Amino acid sequence: MSELRKLQMDELHRKTVEEFRRADKLPVVVVLDNVRSLHNIGSVFRTSDAFLIEAVYLCGISSVPPNPEIHKSALGAEFSVAWKYFADTKEAVAALRADSYAVYAVEQTKNSLNLCSFKVDTSVRYALVFGNEVRGVDQAVVDLCDGSIEIPQFGTKHSFNVSVSAGIVLWELYRQLMPNVKTS
Amino acid sequence: MSELRKLQMDELHRKTVEEFRRADKLPVVVVLDNVRSLHNIGSVFRTSDAFLIEAVYLCGISSVPPNPEIHKSALGAEFSVAWKYFADTKEAVAALRADSYAVYAVEQTKNSLNLCSFKVDTSVRYALVFGNEVRGVDQAVVDLCDGSIEIPQFGTKHSFNVSVSAGIVLWELYRQLMPNVKTS
Repeated sequence: MSELRKLQMDELHRKTVEEFRRADKLPVVVVLDNVRSLHNIGSVFRTSDAFLIEAVYLCGISSVPPNPEIHKSALGAEFSVAWKYFADTKEAVAALRADSYAVYAVEQTKNSLNLCSFKVDTSVRYALVFGNEVRGVDQAVVDLCDGSIEIPQFGTKHSFNVSVSAGIVLWELYRQLMPNVKTS
Repeated sequence: MSELRKLQMDELHRKTVEEFRRADKLPVVVVLDNVRSLHNIGSVFRTSDAFLIEAVYLCGISSVPPNPEIHKSALGAEFSVAWKYFADTKEAVAALRADSYAVYAVEQTKNSLNLCSFKVDTSVRYALVFGNEVRGVDQAVVDLCDGSIEIPQFGTKHSFNVSVSAGIVLWELYRQLMPNVKTS
């Protein structure tokens, strides 16, 4: 038997939906500002499930579960991860700030924090706003945030796919917060 | 003017395709083992462009550029990032090993290295193999690799979307290698 034998499903010891709901979460909420693609929304649910994210806030034109197209990429993670819908992303940001979350837009702005040097404060709860596939996070929403985080990019293109951006930033927060999270 | 004013396209100072080709690269090759989705392939090109990846090796059933569906998510990154096609992923891995790359499958195996504790060796060139959306990396391919890297996951689902996995692992290598890469 190879030392690199791939694990079977039952060896991965994943949680049931009930176990997921009871589990400690990463103190992070993901806000999707008018994300149009159902594939991207589903993928963000799947990533949020893996990293024990508190909730996904779906805003504006972003569709909500249950939806067969979201299900195709979420594969059921839309039933484990908590979510809320807000017609206006600005309301979601206001609610999070009122509840003491530090809200960051993932955007390239004049004063973005580079993700390479972003140091997570373990006493803070974070909300991360990801924007529309074409327009990014609306400027009026960015203006309500505590700051913006930028994933450094050195190629020819202007941005990442939004579900990839969410994967990268959530991984970075998870990586830094992990020692403080009870994951089982 | 807000301190969080979003940057305009011309303020992002992205490279032209010619500048990209001449630029120093991250010593990393991405191998796609029978990745079926054109959206995932395009998204991997876009991420590889942002992190100055050396090349993408497309294997088996993975489609190659030029392709209008790859273009929809790559947005032109398929013209900046170098790529090769191999009918059999095992040939790609053999060629990379013969060329002294350390080849890692991104997979959950009996002896996976956790990405949290994976320390990049700056004297090594890496190749990372990402697998099919349903089956993952083929066991016969995994067996040819130097090792496997696992992104820790604590939810109900068994894996990430493949383009999200690529984003997370490439970010982690970029983050560790960045101080050694001339990016402009």
